[in-house]
Amino acid sequence: MITVKKEVLTDLGCRVFEAVGVPKDEAAWVTDCLVLSNLKGVDSHGVQQIPGYVKNVQKGQITPGAQMKIVRETPAVTIIDGFGGFGYSIAKQAMEVTIKKARAIGVAFSGLHRLGHIGRVGRWPEMALEQDMIGVASQPGGVFVAPWGGIERKLPINPISVAIPTGHGSPFVIDFSMGPIAGGRISILQRRGMKLPPGWVIDDEGKPTQDPSFGVSKGAQLPLGQEGLGYKGYALSMVLSVLTGPLIAMYDFVKHRPSGVFLGVLDIAAFTPLDEFKKSMDDMVADIKASKLAKGFKGILIPGEPEFIEHQRRLKEGISLDDEIWQALSKTAESVGVDTSMYTVEAGGVAVHPSYTLKDRYK
Amino acid sequence: MITVKKEVLTDLGCRVFEAVGVPKDEAAWVTDCLVLSNLKGVDSHGVQQIPGYVKNVQKGQITPGAQMKIVRETPAVTIIDGFGGFGYSIAKQAMEVTIKKARAIGVAFSGLHRLGHIGRVGRWPEMALEQDMIGVASQPGGVFVAPWGGIERKLPINPISVAIPTGHGSPFVIDFSMGPIAGGRISILQRRGMKLPPGWVIDDEGKPTQDPSFGVSKGAQLPLGQEGLGYKGYALSMVLSVLTGPLIAMYDFVKHRPSGVFLGVLDIAAFTPLDEFKKSMDDMVADIKASKLAKGFKGILIPGEPEFIEHQRRLKEGISLDDEIWQALSKTAESVGVDTSMYTVEAGGVAVHPSYTLKDRYK
Repeated sequence: MITVKKEVLTDLGCRVFEAVGVPKDEAAWVTDCLVLSNLKGVDSHGVQQIPGYVKNVQKGQITPGAQMKIVRETPAVTIIDGFGGFGYSIAKQAMEVTIKKARAIGVAFSGLHRLGHIGRVGRWPEMALEQDMIGVASQPGGVFVAPWGGIERKLPINPISVAIPTGHGSPFVIDFSMGPIAGGRISILQRRGMKLPPGWVIDDEGKPTQDPSFGVSKGAQLPLGQEGLGYKGYALSMVLSVLTGPLIAMYDFVKHRPSGVFLGVLDIAAFTPLDEFKKSMDDMVADIKASKLAKGFKGILIPGEPEFIEHQRRLKEGISLDDEIWQALSKTAESVGVDTSMYTVEAGGVAVHPSYTLKDRYK
Repeated sequence: MITVKKEVLTDLGCRVFEAVGVPKDEAAWVTDCLVLSNLKGVDSHGVQQIPGYVKNVQKGQITPGAQMKIVRETPAVTIIDGFGGFGYSIAKQAMEVTIKKARAIGVAFSGLHRLGHIGRVGRWPEMALEQDMIGVASQPGGVFVAPWGGIERKLPINPISVAIPTGHGSPFVIDFSMGPIAGGRISILQRRGMKLPPGWVIDDEGKPTQDPSFGVSKGAQLPLGQEGLGYKGYALSMVLSVLTGPLIAMYDFVKHRPSGVFLGVLDIAAFTPLDEFKKSMDDMVADIKASKLAKGFKGILIPGEPEFIEHQRRLKEGISLDDEIWQALSKTAESVGVDTSMYTVEAGGVAVHPSYTLKDRYK
């Protein structure tokens, strides 16, 4: 494990993407999103994605510099073609349009077609948050979840994010899938020989199991809900499938699944004076936090608060990366002709040669 | 148990409401909503509510004939004052405005203040469904649910309904609370000496229990989610609390809880050609229904399908009511001077005197 300052990762990411032909602004934005995921502790969606994205660009699977095009719109609705661009860039452009429309009339929704990986889904609602608005985003993800009453993988895991401003402290940010566990996390448990909690997955005969080799390519994950209540998780997840599929003309009739990205923005000020809204949010949060604690809990956190706390900590203390991830990044950098000799790993951290000035491209 | 045709219940309901000064159209609409709940098998929200509503009118807690007033609006947002009117009438007026706005620009949301009980929350999204649109509704309900990490009742049960058109068969209609069980259902289990499934409620010390005397006025219900996943149900439920509270200026600072009604409409045609949408919905539903079945299941149903099936059945076979409910209805009718001598209970069913012509006010 080594510790790296965000400025180092930002410098490296920008140079690597620029080296494979990604325009300067776009390289900065994609890197910014990745490093922000690391800062928030969501390392799965952080800089470890860089080697894969570089390969995607080299193979022509991502088109650097692609600009979105609106294919259908009303004052509240925008359907967008991303022309195979970086998901990060297309989602940003789309969110900017959606925020602008919401500012004009209070609410706006968008559907996105043909774009690369959008990374941490919470990033897009956070753009609304920065404007004191409520943001929503969802994309389908892998098809891992059984319907209520069924034992086959039929529903996508359907990650959803909702970001809501508060007056003080952490904003309220949901960012999770409607299934029990993301594919990446399940494979980590598998590698480590760990078990899943009961009630999360079933085997191919529908029998309950805690073996993490089930739930992604074998067996199925169960919809959200304790005993007898999975019909609620199943139903809520299907709503998200409608938003990222049939509603935005992104339903895949061959694979029988949704395949688009759904974004939404609510401009709070169109509903309620913003200061009154924030006062209410703070009171609601304070009341919930005042609950007597369950055994084993040190406090009640609101959604997004763990990431908010981690963000503050990592800004000060740096980002911890597995050695292999740093090595993979360096290897990718060298393979595209980026000089990494100014970064040296010393005493567990990355040091930078005194003659090299880090460009802080991180806004 | 007796069986009553919907026309009889409609006739009785209209006459009773009119007898206490409810305008004819409003009496017909409220009765229509109640009888429709019975037809769908949701008897808790059916005609058994009539005696209570009559008392509310007599005590001045509901104002018959109240008209909503818009207190704030944009092309996509409407904040509405219901002036203490029948929830059924105010929600109907509000949904009509919301549908009209959605038809113009694709999406519209409304927040409702000061109105009576809106009954079965699914009724309002169904109004959008009748226009080939997607409808959404939520209201807070009782505060029964503990936050993730807490053991006190802090979150409302937050019923939500989402109605989505399909091409064939049952439409997709969610209508349930974000907590494990409604207060009414938990008290039925209690009266019958039955247990709750594990993982639904805790006692005042936060210990798991299956005793249905906990979960409403003692102990707490747990948020939706199997072991270790309640943080997801907690978060999703809090989003609904924001929509029915802070967002629409209906957060109660004394009781620390939301207290409004939230409605939403998405006009599918603004996003996607409607026939294409319906084709995708039908394919998605067919694919899900094709899953191998879990043990004990005879088929996979979509949300709303059980009520859809029951509706067809009860239209033909009539509505079964507990004898006590029929007696309570008759008693209420007599107390307000409505003659019920033309209805007689014979051989398990309600017969109507041949000289009396039922007015079919049910549209």
